[in-house]
Amino acid sequence: MNQLGVVKRNIVRADKAAVEKLSKFGVATIHEAMGRVGLMKPYMRPIYKGAKICGTAVTILLQPGDNWMMHVAAEQLQPGDVAVAACTTDNFDGFFGDLLATSFQARGAMGLIIDAGVRDVDELEKMGFPVFSRAIHAKGTIKATLGSVNIAVICAGALVFPGDVVIADADGVVVVPAAMAQEVADAAEKRESFEGEKREKFAAGVLGLDMYKMREPLEKAGLKYID
Amino acid sequence: MNQLGVVKRNIVRADKAAVEKLSKFGVATIHEAMGRVGLMKPYMRPIYKGAKICGTAVTILLQPGDNWMMHVAAEQLQPGDVAVAACTTDNFDGFFGDLLATSFQARGAMGLIIDAGVRDVDELEKMGFPVFSRAIHAKGTIKATLGSVNIAVICAGALVFPGDVVIADADGVVVVPAAMAQEVADAAEKRESFEGEKREKFAAGVLGLDMYKMREPLEKAGLKYID
Amino acid sequence: MNQLGVVKRNIVRADKAAVEKLSKFGVATIHEAMGRVGLMKPYMRPIYKGAKICGTAVTILLQPGDNWMMHVAAEQLQPGDVAVAACTTDNFDGFFGDLLATSFQARGAMGLIIDAGVRDVDELEKMGFPVFSRAIHAKGTIKATLGSVNIAVICAGALVFPGDVVIADADGVVVVPAAMAQEVADAAEKRESFEGEKREKFAAGVLGLDMYKMREPLEKAGLKYID
Amino acid sequence: MNQLGVVKRNIVRADKAAVEKLSKFGVATIHEAMGRVGLMKPYMRPIYKGAKICGTAVTILLQPGDNWMMHVAAEQLQPGDVAVAACTTDNFDGFFGDLLATSFQARGAMGLIIDAGVRDVDELEKMGFPVFSRAIHAKGTIKATLGSVNIAVICAGALVFPGDVVIADADGVVVVPAAMAQEVADAAEKRESFEGEKREKFAAGVLGLDMYKMREPLEKAGLKYID
Amino acid sequence: MNQLGVVKRNIVRADKAAVEKLSKFGVATIHEAMGRVGLMKPYMRPIYKGAKICGTAVTILLQPGDNWMMHVAAEQLQPGDVAVAACTTDNFDGFFGDLLATSFQARGAMGLIIDAGVRDVDELEKMGFPVFSRAIHAKGTIKATLGSVNIAVICAGALVFPGDVVIADADGVVVVPAAMAQEVADAAEKRESFEGEKREKFAAGVLGLDMYKMREPLEKAGLKYID
Amino acid sequence: MNQLGVVKRNIVRADKAAVEKLSKFGVATIHEAMGRVGLMKPYMRPIYKGAKICGTAVTILLQPGDNWMMHVAAEQLQPGDVAVAACTTDNFDGFFGDLLATSFQARGAMGLIIDAGVRDVDELEKMGFPVFSRAIHAKGTIKATLGSVNIAVICAGALVFPGDVVIADADGVVVVPAAMAQEVADAAEKRESFEGEKREKFAAGVLGLDMYKMREPLEKAGLKYID
Repeated sequence: MNQLGVVKRNIVRADKAAVEKLSKFGVATIHEAMGRVGLMKPYMRPIYKGAKICGTAVTILLQPGDNWMMHVAAEQLQPGDVAVAACTTDNFDGFFGDLLATSFQARGAMGLIIDAGVRDVDELEKMGFPVFSRAIHAKGTIKATLGSVNIAVICAGALVFPGDVVIADADGVVVVPAAMAQEVADAAEKRESFEGEKREKFAAGVLGLDMYKMREPLEKAGLKYID
Repeated sequence: MNQLGVVKRNIVRADKAAVEKLSKFGVATIHEAMGRVGLMKPYMRPIYKGAKICGTAVTILLQPGDNWMMHVAAEQLQPGDVAVAACTTDNFDGFFGDLLATSFQARGAMGLIIDAGVRDVDELEKMGFPVFSRAIHAKGTIKATLGSVNIAVICAGALVFPGDVVIADADGVVVVPAAMAQEVADAAEKRESFEGEKREKFAAGVLGLDMYKMREPLEKAGLKYID
Repeated sequence: MNQLGVVKRNIVRADKAAVEKLSKFGVATIHEAMGRVGLMKPYMRPIYKGAKICGTAVTILLQPGDNWMMHVAAEQLQPGDVAVAACTTDNFDGFFGDLLATSFQARGAMGLIIDAGVRDVDELEKMGFPVFSRAIHAKGTIKATLGSVNIAVICAGALVFPGDVVIADADGVVVVPAAMAQEVADAAEKRESFEGEKREKFAAGVLGLDMYKMREPLEKAGLKYID
Repeated sequence: MNQLGVVKRNIVRADKAAVEKLSKFGVATIHEAMGRVGLMKPYMRPIYKGAKICGTAVTILLQPGDNWMMHVAAEQLQPGDVAVAACTTDNFDGFFGDLLATSFQARGAMGLIIDAGVRDVDELEKMGFPVFSRAIHAKGTIKATLGSVNIAVICAGALVFPGDVVIADADGVVVVPAAMAQEVADAAEKRESFEGEKREKFAAGVLGLDMYKMREPLEKAGLKYID
Repeated sequence: MNQLGVVKRNIVRADKAAVEKLSKFGVATIHEAMGRVGLMKPYMRPIYKGAKICGTAVTILLQPGDNWMMHVAAEQLQPGDVAVAACTTDNFDGFFGDLLATSFQARGAMGLIIDAGVRDVDELEKMGFPVFSRAIHAKGTIKATLGSVNIAVICAGALVFPGDVVIADADGVVVVPAAMAQEVADAAEKRESFEGEKREKFAAGVLGLDMYKMREPLEKAGLKYID
Repeated sequence: MNQLGVVKRNIVRADKAAVEKLSKFGVATIHEAMGRVGLMKPYMRPIYKGAKICGTAVTILLQPGDNWMMHVAAEQLQPGDVAVAACTTDNFDGFFGDLLATSFQARGAMGLIIDAGVRDVDELEKMGFPVFSRAIHAKGTIKATLGSVNIAVICAGALVFPGDVVIADADGVVVVPAAMAQEVADAAEKRESFEGEKREKFAAGVLGLDMYKMREPLEKAGLKYID
C-alpha cells in the first residue's frame, strides 16, 4: 500500500533508436508533436546556459531534506539514463552536488532533472553534467528516510514512469512515455520539416494572417479594424 | 463597451529623433528622468544576456493560452516598433517563438515585451531578436479568441499606449509616453551629464555624506554614532 | 529601545588570516563545516555569472524605498569589508547602482549582499563589483528615513553581526560568526581534503552504497528491491 | 512631467443612479457585462468575510513605506467614494489602520481598495469599514514622500481613473469607467435576468450540453467518447 | 497519442462502502494511513469554512481560460462523485460558478476540487456546494478548446484516476486509489483507534518523550542538554 | 560550533507582570511602541479567526520534514510559554497537530508560532489552541534528525531568543526582547492613551492634515493642488 521504500530494478526503457531520434528535436517541438501535453512546470530551469539532456528516466522519490535515495538510484543508472527526482513535499534543499554527479556520470547518466535544489553548480558546469532544477541552494541533506526508486513520480507537474524519455533544453523539460517514443519522434520530424518552409515565407514578409488564412475567421469572430 | 476585438491601425508614434536619443540611455536613467515613474515590475527579465530594446509600442492584448492576436499585430508593426503584449489574466504559456520572431523581424520590429511566456529562446538569441518576458515556457497556444491590437494595455504593472516609447535593458523595462519622449530624452541627457563628475569624485574617495551634504540632515533626523 | 537611527563605528572584524583562508572554500563546503547552519535563503542570487565575495560584514538596515543609510555605511567600510544590507520590510526597489558601487569600491569593499533590489547591473559587472541580491529593479529610492549601520541584522533569513565573515558564490551566501572564523576555516579545509579521495572513487565507479556502507542500514530501514 | 506630487480636487464622479444600480450586482456579473475586462488581480482579498464595496474612486498613489498621501486623500473623499490606493512599487506595509478608517468613515467613504497592506483588521471589521487588500501587516509607515491623489493609477493590474465605479465582493474587485457606468449597469441587469431561467433548468437536470447546444460543436472540434 | 479530446464514459468507481467509511476520517489520518502519500499541494484551500468533500473522482482536464469541458463532465457525474479539475497550464481564471454548481448538484455531485480559480463563492456557500481551489477569481472563461474528461490527471501535484476516492477538509485534499479504498479505510480506522488513548495520556501530562520512548534514541543521536 | 543538537533548560523568561501588561495591547501598537521593529513576515497567519497569543518564547529549531524536536520542546514548556518553531529551510509540512497540541496545552502553553505548516486545524480550533503558521498542510513528518530547543532562532524573519515575549493577533506576530518587556508595555500603554483622543477627533471630521499640521510640510515638499 505504501509507495515508499521500494526500488524497482528491471525497468523497460524506451527504444534506443527512438531516444536517439528524439534527441535531435527541441522541447517545444516534441511537446507540440505529442499534442501539447507532457511538459513540466516552467520553474524548472537549467543550472547553466547551454545545458541539454535527452535520455531514459530512472525515477527517484525523495523525502524533504534527505538525499539517501540518490545513492540507491546511482546503482540503477545505466548509460543513457537521466535521473528524475521528485520530492514528497516542496523542498528547496541542495540534494545533489559534484560528488554525486561524479558517481552518476561514471554510471553513464546524461544528467539530472530535480524538482528541488542542487549545489556545486559551478563544478557541475565544469564537469559538463547538465541539471535542470527548481532551485540552487547550498543547504545540505541527511540520509535517514526511505523514498523510492523507479516508481511512477510526479515531477514538476508531469507524470514520469521509469523508462520514459525525458528531454530538456532552454525551453523547459518534456516527458515522452516510453511506448510513444518512436511515434513522437516521427511526428516531431514531420513537424520540423514544415517549419523551414514557413520560416522562409515569414522571413520574406508573408504574414501569418495570409499564410494561415486567418482573415476570414478573424472577421467572423468579430474583429474590428478602426483608424 | 468591449475593449476586446479591436485593432487600431493608425497610431501616433513618438518622434523618431526623440526615440533615437532615448536609445542612448539606460532604463534606470530614463526612469529617474521621468520623475521615478513608468517602470514595469521587476519580474520582466531578458531571455538572453545583453538583450536591449528601444522602440515605439504596438500593443497587444492576449487571451490566456491563445496567441491569435500576435499574427494580427504583425501586420501593424513598422520598422522601429516594439511589440508589447499583455494578457487578460496571469498566464505563463509560450505565446511566441522563432517563427513569429522571424515574421516580426521581417516587419522591422526591434523586439518583444510580453507579460507572459515565450519559447524557442535559443533560436531567438541566435536571431538577435530581444525579448523581455515573465517566463520561458515551451507550452503551445491556440488561435481561437479575440483580443485587441493597439489599445491601451497594462503590461507588468505599467500602462502602455500604442506609440509610446518602450526601453528595456538589464535593469528592466520603462515606458515613456509618446508626448513626453523629447522632454524625457533631454532630462536623461542632463542627468547623465552630472553622473560623470559624481563618479569621479566617488572614485577619488569623496563620500556621499559630504558630496550631498547629508551630515547635517542626518544629525537633525536623530542619527546617533556610537563606539 | 529603538534599533533604528544608530551607527556603530568600532566593530570587531573577524581575523584577517581566517577570512583569507575561508575565501578558498565554496559556500556549500563552509555551510557543511559549520554543521549545516548559517545559509541565506536561496532567492539571493549573483547579478552576474562568476560573482564571488568573501569579506567582513558592515551591516546596513534600510527602510523601504530609502537608501540613505547606504551613504552612511560607505564611511564605515574598510578594505576587505562586505556591505550586507537588510530592509525593515520586503522591498524590491533598486537601492544601489554604479555610483554607490564606485564609492564602495573606492573604500575597498569586496561587494554587496542585499535582501532587496539593485540596478545598473551591467555597469556593476563591468566594474567587477559583485552583488548578490533578491531582485534587479531600476526603481529609484529616496533619502529621508533613518535606518542603522553595524547593528545585528537579519538578511535573507540569516542573522549577521557586523564583523562576521560573509562568503557568496554561485551556490548562495553563508555567514560565519567572527569568533568562529578560524575554526570553520579549519573544518572546511579538513572536509575538502576528504572530498578528493571520494571523488576519485566515485569516478572509478564505486557506489556511495558501498563507500558509505549504506546497504545494511537501508535494509534495516525496510528498503525492498523488486524486479 | 512628473505624476508625483499632484492632487486633483475636481473630479467627475460616475452618475449616482448608475452607481446605485451597479451596487445590486456581483463582481462576476459586472465583469461579464463589461465584456470580460476591468478586473483586479485575484490576490486582492477582503479583510473580513462579507465585506462589500460599491462607490466612486478617489485614487491615491503611495510611495513604499509611506502613507502621507492617505491624509491628503481624506480631504478629497466625499460620501459614496471609495479610496483606491496603489503604490509605486510592490510593498506590503500596513499603510492604513483604524484611525484613518475613522477619518475616512467620517468623510462618508464606503471603503478602501489597496494594493498593499493594512492593519487593525479586527477593529476595521468592528467598525464595518470594508477593505480589500493584498496583505495584512502590522508594519507601520512614515509620512515623508509625496505621491499623488486623483491621478490615474494602476491598482492590482487594473487602470483606475478618479470617479470610476469600483465594486468589490467575495469574488474580487472590478472597475467600471465612469462614462460606462449606466451602460454596464443595464447590461448587468439584462445578464442577470437570464440567469434565473438558466438556474432553474440546471436545477431540473437539464445539461449545459443541451441548453447551450454544445454537442454538435464539440463533435466538430473532434471530441471522442470512449467506453 | 493525444490525451486531449477524449471522454471516457465507463469508469470503475471505488467501492461505495469503502467510500462511506473513508468519509468518517480526516485528510491527515487518511494520508498517514496510506503511508504518507497522495496529498495535493497545500495551496488548495476550501472556499468557505467548514467545506468537506468525500466522493469518487470524475476527472476533467481543462485548457487555460476555457471551461467547455465542465459541461461535458456534468453529463458524466453520478451521485456521490466529486469533480476533479486540472488545467494544462497554471491558470487562475474563474472556471466555475453558481450555474455550473447548480448543474453539478442536480447530478448528485458532492463538490469540486479545481487546480485553478472559481467565482460566485458566496452563492456556492449558500448552496452548500463545497469547492477546494487554488484561487478565487471573477474572471470568466470561454468555450472553444477541447480538453478531456475521465483521463488520469495531475491535480495540484497529485495523480488522480477517474473513480479514485478524493477526500477534502480543512487540512487539504488527499487521493485514495480506487483499488485501495477499503484497505486505506481500515488502516485509517485502526490508526484513529490508537489516537484516543494517546490523547488522554497527553492530556494527563505524559510527555511524548516517555510515551514514545524517545529519550534513548535522542541521546544516541547526540542531543545535549545544557543549563 | 554546531547549533544543532542542543537543548537549553534554564532560560530567563520575561517578567510576568510585563507579559501580562503586554497582553492587553495589539500587535500593531506594540510594534510601534518598540520603534517599528520586531515583526514577523506577513505570511504568518492565524489558523482560525480570533486566535490570539501572548507569552514567553520556548524556541524550537526544526529540520525539514521532521518534528522530533517538538516532543523535546514539550518538556521545556511552562505555563505561560509560547512555542516558537523555525526550520533550517523553507518547509511547509504539517509538523504539528491535535495530539501535540494536547500535550502542549497540558503543559500550560498559550499557543504555537511556526514558520512551517500545521494540520488538524479544525481540532485545534475546537481545543482553543491558537496557532500562527505559514501553511496548513496534512503532510506528516518523521522523527529522525536533531534540531535544537531554546537557542536563538530566526522565525519568519524575526530573531527570537528563548524567554522573549511573543504577541500574535489578526495583524501578525511581534517579538519583544525579554529585557525590554516592561519598557515596551509602558510605551504601548502611553501610545494607546493618545489614540482615543485622536479617534474622537477623526470621528468628528477633523482631518489628519490639520490634526498633524501637515499642510505646511506638504506644501514645502512641493505638493500641488489642481482643479
